[in-house]
Parts: sequence; C-alpha cells; structure tokens
Amino acid sequence: MADYVYTLQMQVRDYELDSEGIVNNANYLHYLEHTRHRFCAENGISFAEMQRRGIIPVLNKVEIEYKEPLRSDDEFLSRLWLERKGVRFIFHQDIFKHNGRQCVKAVVSCVCLENGKLDRGDLLADIFKDFL
Amino acid sequence: MADYVYTLQMQVRDYELDSEGIVNNANYLHYLEHTRHRFCAENGISFAEMQRRGIIPVLNKVEIEYKEPLRSDDEFLSRLWLERKGVRFIFHQDIFKHNGRQCVKAVVSCVCLENGKLDRGDLLADIFKDFL
Amino acid sequence: MADYVYTLQMQVRDYELDSEGIVNNANYLHYLEHTRHRFCAENGISFAEMQRRGIIPVLNKVEIEYKEPLRSDDEFLSRLWLERKGVRFIFHQDIFKHNGRQCVKAVVSCVCLENGKLDRGDLLADIFKDFL
Amino acid sequence: MADYVYTLQMQVRDYELDSEGIVNNANYLHYLEHTRHRFCAENGISFAEMQRRGIIPVLNKVEIEYKEPLRSDDEFLSRLWLERKGVRFIFHQDIFKHNGRQCVKAVVSCVCLENGKLDRGDLLADIFKDFL
Repeated sequence: MADYVYTLQMQVRDYELDSEGIVNNANYLHYLEHTRHRFCAENGISFAEMQRRGIIPVLNKVEIEYKEPLRSDDEFLSRLWLERKGVRFIFHQDIFKHNGRQCVKAVVSCVCLENGKLDRGDLLADIFKDFL
Repeated sequence: MADYVYTLQMQVRDYELDSEGIVNNANYLHYLEHTRHRFCAENGISFAEMQRRGIIPVLNKVEIEYKEPLRSDDEFLSRLWLERKGVRFIFHQDIFKHNGRQCVKAVVSCVCLENGKLDRGDLLADIFKDFL
Repeated sequence: MADYVYTLQMQVRDYELDSEGIVNNANYLHYLEHTRHRFCAENGISFAEMQRRGIIPVLNKVEIEYKEPLRSDDEFLSRLWLERKGVRFIFHQDIFKHNGRQCVKAVVSCVCLENGKLDRGDLLADIFKDFL
Repeated sequence: MADYVYTLQMQVRDYELDSEGIVNNANYLHYLEHTRHRFCAENGISFAEMQRRGIIPVLNKVEIEYKEPLRSDDEFLSRLWLERKGVRFIFHQDIFKHNGRQCVKAVVSCVCLENGKLDRGDLLADIFKDFL
C-alpha cells in the first residue's frame, strides 16, 4: 500500500479535453508536474528558487499507465511519494477520482543538473530528507 | 467601477511559463475560458450539459490587454461580469495579482449555435438572467 | 487589400481540438505567435537571439476575431504584415483555410523591453526595416 | 536496429519551451501523438474518420525516456514503427535532432474502444496490415 506524502486536489479544465471529451494524454503530465512543483514549493524549495540557485531538475524517464479517463468537471486527487536511487529522485504518482477509482499510475524519474552538469542532488536530498 | 459577479482564485502552474519566465500569452485565454466555464457551471449550467442539449457557445471576438505579467507561483484573482447585446453575450474579464495590480483586461464576445445554426441564446439568457 | 510580407503553411494537430471538435480558441494565439517568431527568425533575428541580446518583446494587446473554426486535419495559411506606431510594433495577422475562407483576423501589438525597461525598439526596427 | 515505417519532420515552436528554455516534458507526448495521427491519416484512416466509425483508440501506457532536450528553433525527426500484441497496438517512437542525436525514446501502447467497449482492433489491424 502506497504511503503518500503529498496530495493535491485539482479539477479538470475544459480546455484540457480533446475531441473525444476526455482529458488529452499529455495533460496528465502537466498534472503530475504541477503536483511535484507544489510539493516542492510547500515543503522546502520552489522550482523558481532552484533555478536561481543554479539547480535544474530534469526528467529522464516517465512511465504512465492510463487506467480510467477524466472528463469535464471531474475533481481528482493527485498524490505522490518519492525515493532516492543513486543520483535519481523517483516520484511515484497516482491520480484518483473523487469516487476513489484510479485514473493514472505513474513513475517519474528526475536528475539534477548544476551549472549544466549532472549533480548528485545532495542539496535537494537534504531539503527533502523527511520525505525520502 | 466594474461590478463583478464572479471571482475565481487561481495559481500559475510552472508549465504555463515560457522561456522568459512569464506566463505565455495564450495561457491567459485558458484562464479566461476556465473562469467563464466555472461561472456557468456554478450558476446554472455546465458546458458539458450545454453540449448535451445541443447548445454550443462559440467565441466570435476577444480583446485582451496585457498589463503586467504573471510569474512562477503567482496567485491571482480572475473576475468577470457579463451583458447581453443582441445575440452576443459579452464577458468583461479582469485578472488581478494578490497585491491588487491588474495583469489582464479582456472583453470576450460569444454567440450560441444550436444544431449548427446561430441562435438567439434565449435559453442561456434565461438561466443567467440574474447576472445580465 | 492586405499586403502580406510573410506566409506560413500549417496544419491542425488533433491535440489542439477541444471537445466540440474545433481548435480551442487559445491555440490560435499559439499559431499567431509561432508565425511571428518564424517571420523574425527567417528575416533577421530569432527570439532566442533577441533574448541573448537582452531584448524581450512582450505583447501588450491582442484583438482577435474568430470567423470560422478550424477542424481536424485542416491545412491553413497564417499570414502577416506589420507596421510601427511609436514604440509599438503592430502585427496584422490573418489565417485562411486552403479553400480561401478566413478563419481568424487579428491585430497584435508588441513592445520591447531592454534590460527590463521599455525600449524604443530601434534595433528591431532597423533589422526589419524592409517590412515596415 | 529499428526499422521505422514513418518519419515526420517537425520544428520546435517557442511556446512549447518552459522557463528553462527547453521543450516542456508534456509537449513530447504531443509530438508523439501528432506523429501517430499523421501516420494513420497518410496510411489508411484519420482519427476523425475512426471517430465517425465509432472506433476510439485510447492510450493505456506510455514509457518515455528523455535523452537530450530540444531547444528553440530545433528541427527534429519523429519516427515510428509498430506491432500488435493481443488487443494492443504498440508504437515504438523515437525523436532525433537533425545532427542524429536521440532526444526521446518512447513505447506507446493503445487499445481500441468500439461503442465504449474494448475491441480486438481487427479493422485497424487490417487497414495497417502492411506495417505490422
């Protein structure tokens, strides 16, 4: 059973729908990114602040399963927990409808660049140590 | 002085920024659309329900002034009032930062199609009569 | 009769459609921006190069009329001409379907910031002098 | 060595960049979707035509590796080959810069719904039989 450390409540916006009336597949990556960024901003450091310090987190891999589509007006919970594996930060991210049914299951792997070079990410690991 | 009938609180999402670090101009149209759709859904009829009834509101004109840019993490208030002019519904929409400074001033004109033909929009005018 | 100085051929991408099966209103601003940026890149200076030189063009006003919607697979021509009015560059931008029918008529007003302050834009006016 | 059956040449649009000056991670899913849709439209049946026939292809899984970012003005080649595994159509999709370096490696799995129910996809398998 996943032990989430952060939950963001969101709602589908109609411009995110495609011609089938369901949220377009790419928009789930937007939901997942926004959830990660809000988690970081509320728990230690925002992405804008990372950039000012020269730390650039970049995605190196996303695995996403689409289980059930979101539709117009749907409210949903976007939840995550994370772990560190070597230089990578692994975000486990799930999206649930308000009725509890799972929409998306994703594993998102990030690394840090510092001044353009791959970094061990020790600064971020320290900031987020309570969640790792 | 504008007499707003609806206010939606929103926050910039980092994927809405462009390479200058400010919200891309097209995303303000997304903010404005989402505000109109939430206003409609909370005050009478959602766009999904309009579509089911064969009513398709379409934009015919937007005038938007960009006064001050929104940046990462900015919270903002998206406000509107509306009027009817002939077959058109005119939404007056303004976006303000939390410090009160105005970011965007827009006038958005919509008409209704019913079964593909221009409609007088009497059904919507009746549903939203308290706001017109 | 408009005397266009640049024409870009584009095609609708399905992710740009909304649930009504027509291109979402905000995506036309994307089409218009891309057309302006390609015009600049092909005729003197790219936006990336402007940024490197500290010149930041920002929109201050857009007026856009939606005349006929674009749909899945539609090819279209995005055309522009421009003029200078004081510190503003005014782009007159029109989008036409391949059958010649007009989809969008827009007037886009930009100013230049140089190191964060409003600039007269003389450098750009010089680069694009053949088009003004 | 991959044996691609389709290649689409594309170019980065500046509104696809994020504040780090690189293409936002979600936009690669847009590139991949557009490539699949153009492949289908040019080789048998467009998505609009599938919808008219009641066939709705939906993604059930995407695995995407981000190897090297795309930046302003970059041109790129988006290539694919596909296979059928049970009811799933598996698209193997790679994106390369013009200098030959790989930007993205993705595996995209789709299924077909027909009138809302999971379908074996025999009609599409027949249309695309030369590519399977």
